[in-house]
Amino acid sequence: MAYRFAYRASSEAALLRRVAAIEKSGFKVIGWADGDLGHGRAFRFEDPFGHLFEIYWETNRYRAPEEERPKLKNLAQRYHGQGASPCHLDHLNLLAADVAEFRRFMETCLGSRVTEMIQLDNGRLGGCWFTVNNKTYNLACTEEHGGGHGRFHHVTYATDTREDILRAADIFLENGVHIETGPHKYAIQGTFFLYVWEPAGNRVELANSGARLILAPDWEPVVWTETERKKGQAWGLKTIETFHTHGTPPVPQKGH
Amino acid sequence: MAYRFAYRASSEAALLRRVAAIEKSGFKVIGWADGDLGHGRAFRFEDPFGHLFEIYWETNRYRAPEEERPKLKNLAQRYHGQGASPCHLDHLNLLAADVAEFRRFMETCLGSRVTEMIQLDNGRLGGCWFTVNNKTYNLACTEEHGGGHGRFHHVTYATDTREDILRAADIFLENGVHIETGPHKYAIQGTFFLYVWEPAGNRVELANSGARLILAPDWEPVVWTETERKKGQAWGLKTIETFHTHGTPPVPQKGH
Amino acid sequence: MAYRFAYRASSEAALLRRVAAIEKSGFKVIGWADGDLGHGRAFRFEDPFGHLFEIYWETNRYRAPEEERPKLKNLAQRYHGQGASPCHLDHLNLLAADVAEFRRFMETCLGSRVTEMIQLDNGRLGGCWFTVNNKTYNLACTEEHGGGHGRFHHVTYATDTREDILRAADIFLENGVHIETGPHKYAIQGTFFLYVWEPAGNRVELANSGARLILAPDWEPVVWTETERKKGQAWGLKTIETFHTHGTPPVPQKGH
Amino acid sequence: MAYRFAYRASSEAALLRRVAAIEKSGFKVIGWADGDLGHGRAFRFEDPFGHLFEIYWETNRYRAPEEERPKLKNLAQRYHGQGASPCHLDHLNLLAADVAEFRRFMETCLGSRVTEMIQLDNGRLGGCWFTVNNKTYNLACTEEHGGGHGRFHHVTYATDTREDILRAADIFLENGVHIETGPHKYAIQGTFFLYVWEPAGNRVELANSGARLILAPDWEPVVWTETERKKGQAWGLKTIETFHTHGTPPVPQKGH
Repeated sequence: MAYRFAYRASSEAALLRRVAAIEKSGFKVIGWADGDLGHGRAFRFEDPFGHLFEIYWETNRYRAPEEERPKLKNLAQRYHGQGASPCHLDHLNLLAADVAEFRRFMETCLGSRVTEMIQLDNGRLGGCWFTVNNKTYNLACTEEHGGGHGRFHHVTYATDTREDILRAADIFLENGVHIETGPHKYAIQGTFFLYVWEPAGNRVELANSGARLILAPDWEPVVWTETERKKGQAWGLKTIETFHTHGTPPVPQKGH
Repeated sequence: MAYRFAYRASSEAALLRRVAAIEKSGFKVIGWADGDLGHGRAFRFEDPFGHLFEIYWETNRYRAPEEERPKLKNLAQRYHGQGASPCHLDHLNLLAADVAEFRRFMETCLGSRVTEMIQLDNGRLGGCWFTVNNKTYNLACTEEHGGGHGRFHHVTYATDTREDILRAADIFLENGVHIETGPHKYAIQGTFFLYVWEPAGNRVELANSGARLILAPDWEPVVWTETERKKGQAWGLKTIETFHTHGTPPVPQKGH
Repeated sequence: MAYRFAYRASSEAALLRRVAAIEKSGFKVIGWADGDLGHGRAFRFEDPFGHLFEIYWETNRYRAPEEERPKLKNLAQRYHGQGASPCHLDHLNLLAADVAEFRRFMETCLGSRVTEMIQLDNGRLGGCWFTVNNKTYNLACTEEHGGGHGRFHHVTYATDTREDILRAADIFLENGVHIETGPHKYAIQGTFFLYVWEPAGNRVELANSGARLILAPDWEPVVWTETERKKGQAWGLKTIETFHTHGTPPVPQKGH
Repeated sequence: MAYRFAYRASSEAALLRRVAAIEKSGFKVIGWADGDLGHGRAFRFEDPFGHLFEIYWETNRYRAPEEERPKLKNLAQRYHGQGASPCHLDHLNLLAADVAEFRRFMETCLGSRVTEMIQLDNGRLGGCWFTVNNKTYNLACTEEHGGGHGRFHHVTYATDTREDILRAADIFLENGVHIETGPHKYAIQGTFFLYVWEPAGNRVELANSGARLILAPDWEPVVWTETERKKGQAWGLKTIETFHTHGTPPVPQKGH
């Protein structure tokens, strides 16, 4: 397993409560690992589809070196205005053979809430969007159709404006980065998006949610039917075929 | 007291915990009031500067009438694209004779965290920005310099983009609404802002925070000195004089 | 012929020079017509593909009624900020069975310059973009593939910003207007675009060209090959099928 | 005279017509100069306020080196998305002791049209905006109040969007570049602007005009009164004091 996803607990006590919940959940537990770059000890566990998670509390807050100190002291570092200039990590999207089971994992182990989901006509969940704070989602899961295991669909960075994403599209174009789809606006969650593949093949999204937040503690998940999803994205863009098939790592082809 | 500010608790249990904290806080308690438009019973209390607060749990979720149902089911109602088209209520700003005491009120009664603040050379707090969730602030307090009591400085609506605010400036201009200052970007919190006075004299702000959120549970308040604040806003705009003196209701003039 | 396209000459003398050039061009001449709403007498002529053109000098400058007078005197009327709020008519796109012959018509009769064009592998022109001023184009022509005659492909309105177009997409969505394709950025001309069909079926485009102008009097047309065009638009969007087939008026179907 | 401003004629014949007009104008003529970087021979002349102009036809069109070739062949070079990323030179602003006389110079020697102007109560022109094409202005002149001669007020670069200017403000801030005023929108011409001083003291503006163009050949100049100008810019920003006094080169102080 070459990659893992780390959540930060809201306190040491919250971390220990989570660990207790995970240990009794029946999902696969790896156990405590020493700290790593940027954080202290972390508790590792795994979803039924081969993705490695960890949770930690102790963190090493980034301190910019002298030459990277921003002019405004409420920023972590200088703004350079180069490239897409995203503001922070927005969310991950993972592939799973059974989204309903993945949902049980997220609710049980991480206390995540579902904000939106796709209910397929065959009774299965096609996708599920989860949050642990006021963001509309921190992690999404979509159904694996390529026969892979433990696969990653994409990682997303948040930009301050939609214009940052339009600008980034020109930068990707000029630098020969494969633009898979977008810019456009999602029907689900209403996010303005752009997808590219970095040179190693991982899908990266830039996203802007405007001022949208989920502030209601009793938010009811928005459930989209298969019929509704067939209408395409908010302004009509159809989902591109590779979006259903491309994940990383690639699935070995038979006979190879 | 003609106006009041209502916070929603995150559950019925949380509401009761808050009420217990407020009752033993020593701050002025009004007590339970029946529900009002949009919410159920609410517990009322007052800060030492004459502002009436309330806290509640039961809410009546807005259901759009047939003709206002949006095409995207994750929205509360149709987007009309008229006027400034703000997305949600962003924050309030209240005036208080003693910001440090107001801070004690916010932390004790509402469990608010301070994300940024102004430390004046005379040892007093010039202003304080508070949050109870992942927004950078839900309420701000600045020092009352006009001799008023229980005064309101402004209410703010969040827009999805900075362009919404530039557009709104043209709409305010065309409709003869007094634009007090902006559009510009705050040094504190980095918010892109525009201030107008509605016809009755209340100050209204439009604001866009980009993707900025306070996600760290152990965020350390950013403390600005008086010298730093004298540099003006992020891009150099000086604070307009009325911003320090205009609040509502107006303070009666002596001899009148 | 239910519709016609009018160009304004740059002076009375320029109008008469144009009329002389048109009369000796061999293209079909209709002759002088009385003035119409907004302009004085106009000289009418026709391209070989059934589109009626006219050219005039005398114009009735719009004067806003009292209640529509703008706050800024350099504007023609108040800004309302409703709908897409386009700034001016941008260009037309016409269908023609022979784009090269249409080009000869535009250069001969209107003195238009070609700024960009598509050179197909079969030796024909697939499309041609014309200008008579510093705009990158005022009129475009693309090859008719639907067997129609005198057909119109689309009319375009210019917006001040790309954000106006993103906003308009939401407004079109909410009002049930068919969004055909976009928003995206053209490879040819680099225009940010959105296409919709108004209820009667005519295609309407919103476009933003940023600061792009053709200021060089000796601009060499940019020639795109068929291979280059197959790459799709600037950020990779493929041309939607209806874009090649839908024009107005519709072509009567055989047997109907 | 360390700097000069060059206009390109629309053809060799137009150049010679202009030279004849300048020679008989009575304004100061310098005569033909050999070509320089980017252009062929140029005819030099001077306004009565010490600014050196030239006009030329032959030009060396920029050809990007291999590594700077853009992905879209209608662009002059690659888009890097760094800094303010302006699209083209927009206009110059010069200071003159007598704006009306400067206007006579611009109309006589360059055939420029006035699109907007300020008529002061004392009968003088306070400022004048000139164009030779469809841009709203290519050159502006404002009254010199600092006792200087041949001074330059600012040079302006056009950006594709207003967002480019907001982004640039952050970049200027981070790099310690003095932001003089803005971003804001002008009442005159409606341009969205930002002014900074480059390290040597020259004022540089970034500007975005949206889709605004002057397409009418018989455009009547918009005349602003002194009273109207005292209202400040479009959204109320007052003109900063240095804007009236700072020009380059600086005026030597008496006794120094």
